[in-house]
Amino acid sequence: MTKNIKVNAAILIIGNEILSGRTQDTNTSTIALWLNSIGVQVQEVRVIPDIEKTIIDTVNMLRKANDYVFTTGGIGPTHDDITAESISKAFDLNYEIHKEAFKILEAYYKPGEFNEGRQTMAWMPKDAKLILNPTSGAPGFSIENVFCLPGVPSILKSMLGGLKNAIVGGKPILSHTISLRTVESEIASSLTLVQNNNKEVEIGSYPFFQAGKLGVSIVIRSEDQSKIDTCSSQILNFVNQKKIEVVNRD
Amino acid sequence: MTKNIKVNAAILIIGNEILSGRTQDTNTSTIALWLNSIGVQVQEVRVIPDIEKTIIDTVNMLRKANDYVFTTGGIGPTHDDITAESISKAFDLNYEIHKEAFKILEAYYKPGEFNEGRQTMAWMPKDAKLILNPTSGAPGFSIENVFCLPGVPSILKSMLGGLKNAIVGGKPILSHTISLRTVESEIASSLTLVQNNNKEVEIGSYPFFQAGKLGVSIVIRSEDQSKIDTCSSQILNFVNQKKIEVVNRD
Repeated sequence: MTKNIKVNAAILIIGNEILSGRTQDTNTSTIALWLNSIGVQVQEVRVIPDIEKTIIDTVNMLRKANDYVFTTGGIGPTHDDITAESISKAFDLNYEIHKEAFKILEAYYKPGEFNEGRQTMAWMPKDAKLILNPTSGAPGFSIENVFCLPGVPSILKSMLGGLKNAIVGGKPILSHTISLRTVESEIASSLTLVQNNNKEVEIGSYPFFQAGKLGVSIVIRSEDQSKIDTCSSQILNFVNQKKIEVVNRD
Repeated sequence: MTKNIKVNAAILIIGNEILSGRTQDTNTSTIALWLNSIGVQVQEVRVIPDIEKTIIDTVNMLRKANDYVFTTGGIGPTHDDITAESISKAFDLNYEIHKEAFKILEAYYKPGEFNEGRQTMAWMPKDAKLILNPTSGAPGFSIENVFCLPGVPSILKSMLGGLKNAIVGGKPILSHTISLRTVESEIASSLTLVQNNNKEVEIGSYPFFQAGKLGVSIVIRSEDQSKIDTCSSQILNFVNQKKIEVVNRD
């Protein structure tokens, strides 16, 4: 299913471990790349601590301002896992045992191992829809346009595929990257001209250091391949004139 | 200089390349770890696109709600580098050539190479304080409690040392990590008890997969080492009783 309008999303990373700098978030990139491929553009990411009021207020703000909200983290069995209860409060829904989630978890663990800690993972907002977890049993859930996923990157990644039918995207956002052996200030004015001539296309310029050498990646993004191609040839035009080496195109 | 009160900060990542998922942000972790070491706690991170109004509104909100704000990205020479002008508007200050920054850049480049593109990097909010850049010449800047740094991780990292005297932190936030060969649900109830007995200490529980094996890292954070030690021994107590292997402590 595709719509010809822009569809946007926010990502909400819930977790003190990211704010402390101890853990490097990688879920933003995973979710954003996947959303792009189904025509949803991420317009905002927030990282917030495991504080109930902060979670409630932020979710309520983001779900009104975006077509979709994806949260990560805080749905495990320990005391700092407060996402499900906070989301229940944000939507003013009962926080209760989800029968289907309970059955899935009960079947996942060996008899006698489905202890109290594990049972807490079956508590969700009333009438939540489950997001199945092929890696480690415990499901995520969604309520209206808010999708709650776990924080462990490999588990989160394994759950995205099952979500595809729940998301109605626009046209996929296409991109083309031209990597040059140059510095930004050598191409800045030429690139500005190309951007001004192609206002509907998003052109980004990103310096990089690779194997001790400087370079610039120019990223052209649009929903329309022909507009990307036009931009691309205008860029390669000034690149050739300036005798700048093209390192890579993809 | 230290204060005995909590000092907090927000990090604002400005850049479409992070929202598209193309580039993995690593600056959050770099800045957060450095701030922790000087007694500043990051309470919020936002990633926003290169849109002037969004930058202005977000900076104005964050600078009022936090002791410090650190922005990354958008201070290079290309058309998508709009941070300096947006910050000028946020503070209602003229956007103009900063004489000292101009001199630094002029001296950095070879004669004749200080072109128009490069000169744009000397444009800043009026009376900005410079943040020196030992890696690539172009300085960052600060206005009141807002510090604007570049997006390239290696350059950003090299500039933090020079900022230390500009930041007045509280007590450094100390932490101790106990990594266990277990799963969260085995320790959830015992850990809840320890958290309830030590309410002033922040205890986080983070599952991990390493070399194909499951584990849980328990992270204890406080400004007070003796409180961390108390928590730590209470945790090791139940860990021993449950005959759980301690993989690592640091």
